[in-house]
Amino acid sequence: MLKAPDNQVAGHKAGGGQLGPLIDDSGRFYKPLQGDERGSNEVSFYTSFSSNSKVPDHITRFFPKFDGTQLVEASDGSGMQPHLVLQDLTFGRVNPSIMDIKIGSRTWPSHASEDYIQKCLKKDRKSSSLPLGFRVSGAQIFQSIELGYWKPDSKSTVQSLSADEVRLLLKQFVSSNVSGVADSKPDCAFASIVYGGSTGILSQLLELKAWFEDQTIYHFYSCSILMMFEKELASSEKSPRAEIKLIDFAHVFEGKGVIDHNFLGGLCSLIKLISEILTTPEDYAADSLLEDAQRNHVYTDNGGGLNILNDCDAKAYRLL
Amino acid sequence: MLKAPDNQVAGHKAGGGQLGPLIDDSGRFYKPLQGDERGSNEVSFYTSFSSNSKVPDHITRFFPKFDGTQLVEASDGSGMQPHLVLQDLTFGRVNPSIMDIKIGSRTWPSHASEDYIQKCLKKDRKSSSLPLGFRVSGAQIFQSIELGYWKPDSKSTVQSLSADEVRLLLKQFVSSNVSGVADSKPDCAFASIVYGGSTGILSQLLELKAWFEDQTIYHFYSCSILMMFEKELASSEKSPRAEIKLIDFAHVFEGKGVIDHNFLGGLCSLIKLISEILTTPEDYAADSLLEDAQRNHVYTDNGGGLNILNDCDAKAYRLL
Repeated sequence: MLKAPDNQVAGHKAGGGQLGPLIDDSGRFYKPLQGDERGSNEVSFYTSFSSNSKVPDHITRFFPKFDGTQLVEASDGSGMQPHLVLQDLTFGRVNPSIMDIKIGSRTWPSHASEDYIQKCLKKDRKSSSLPLGFRVSGAQIFQSIELGYWKPDSKSTVQSLSADEVRLLLKQFVSSNVSGVADSKPDCAFASIVYGGSTGILSQLLELKAWFEDQTIYHFYSCSILMMFEKELASSEKSPRAEIKLIDFAHVFEGKGVIDHNFLGGLCSLIKLISEILTTPEDYAADSLLEDAQRNHVYTDNGGGLNILNDCDAKAYRLL
Repeated sequence: MLKAPDNQVAGHKAGGGQLGPLIDDSGRFYKPLQGDERGSNEVSFYTSFSSNSKVPDHITRFFPKFDGTQLVEASDGSGMQPHLVLQDLTFGRVNPSIMDIKIGSRTWPSHASEDYIQKCLKKDRKSSSLPLGFRVSGAQIFQSIELGYWKPDSKSTVQSLSADEVRLLLKQFVSSNVSGVADSKPDCAFASIVYGGSTGILSQLLELKAWFEDQTIYHFYSCSILMMFEKELASSEKSPRAEIKLIDFAHVFEGKGVIDHNFLGGLCSLIKLISEILTTPEDYAADSLLEDAQRNHVYTDNGGGLNILNDCDAKAYRLL
């Protein structure tokens, strides 16, 4: 009854002799336990977190529900293997657009082994983690039934995007005109409904930020924020079910009375980029209107400000 | 007319063939230009910053005033050398208590040379920068005219304090009973007047934080926050002139549209530690009262809560 998930945008996938996660048809996600300390560490985190009464409810909702561990037939058919039983975060969603963002300029804790530190540091320095405080680990952006999803060419490309490229991707994520064409200007049509508003992604990120400014229980290394929504709902002016979730806790350690400044810094960087998209939507709309008009060589300025006309309007105007 | 500053707690000092800063008697601080790109970079920063109209006044007040560069007879008598002419931040202060806190878990920018990165990373990993998001670079805590200043034993000790030790030092900084005795409990007598209130250090740090959440002009690597106040004023219940200033800009670079998540994270970590001292003062007072009482073996509990009495009160009580 178990199968590979439809909407996995990052992380280990089944195939090529590697174990991958599985889902069932009732909303459960089975994540194979990594054999080394990463597996046991992730179990410890979920066990601690799910019974920690100090974490408020409005924060626990940002984490997948945890239902223990279970022996399950592995994705590679190698027999029964232990899996974490988690909530399938895209269960019930139709054509979800998803971004996986690994938070923190540093993906390693200071107490890790020298080998591990050097390995992570090399990856961090190759990616946008150092300059941006986070890196995009994967994405799928729904375009249309006909075109399907836009996905990045490769993992390494998406992980090493510059600040400007990440800004562009964050705009494309909420645009109706995403396409493979690199120079197409994203229209940010769904920015206000997905990022904005009291239930939008920015508002959720700000709630998470407030918790990270205060909590000293856990430090989250190499943990991701998933951002999800459904474009078809947004297009029909329904709630696009915009949501963030934290995932991947194989490198969570005790905070020991100090805030997770590494996660918090990266989170604030992401918040700033998304805020900018929201606070300047008019510019984009105006720019794109202006460009349309310039392309059509039809605009008038009769002293009362710039009147932008498209071909059709201009025709009508001439008929007056 | 120039002399070595009285209140330097960190950084290069004159002596041993090394150039150090100088002050005059009118409030100016002459910082020798480092010969390599660090010198020119710091001049560039001060020049850019002091003419940048985008930085609001309530933020520029946290930076030393800059008055260009000047050839000045060097501290080692080696002749005229170029110096930055800056504001002497402790000018006019009497017996100031000072902490120099280097902000950021990472003191190097991602574009630095491999040698420089490895050198800084080694220092960062030895210090509390990685766990705390900042490290204490130096301190002087005024005790009394008789005892003078408490200063840390060595630079390396103070730079590698644990979170608990930094918390203790931040308490000692605002206590009336600082002494060399390690097990003496700081009374935090001046916490509310120095850290707290609308003009206190916490309030200033929060203003700075709000700016760092938004500004994408500069990234500050290896930059310090100085915290200063005057204990004798606090003791006589006058304003202790609590103040923060940013210093050391040899490693400031363009932000390129991204916030300085490395500085912001460390700043938030410092804010959290100071907030905790302020939000739990009653505990310390109660604890210390209780300990006094226990030391004097005199306390009563007659059902209406614990009545803590010192020897003197107890005597009076018995007389009733």
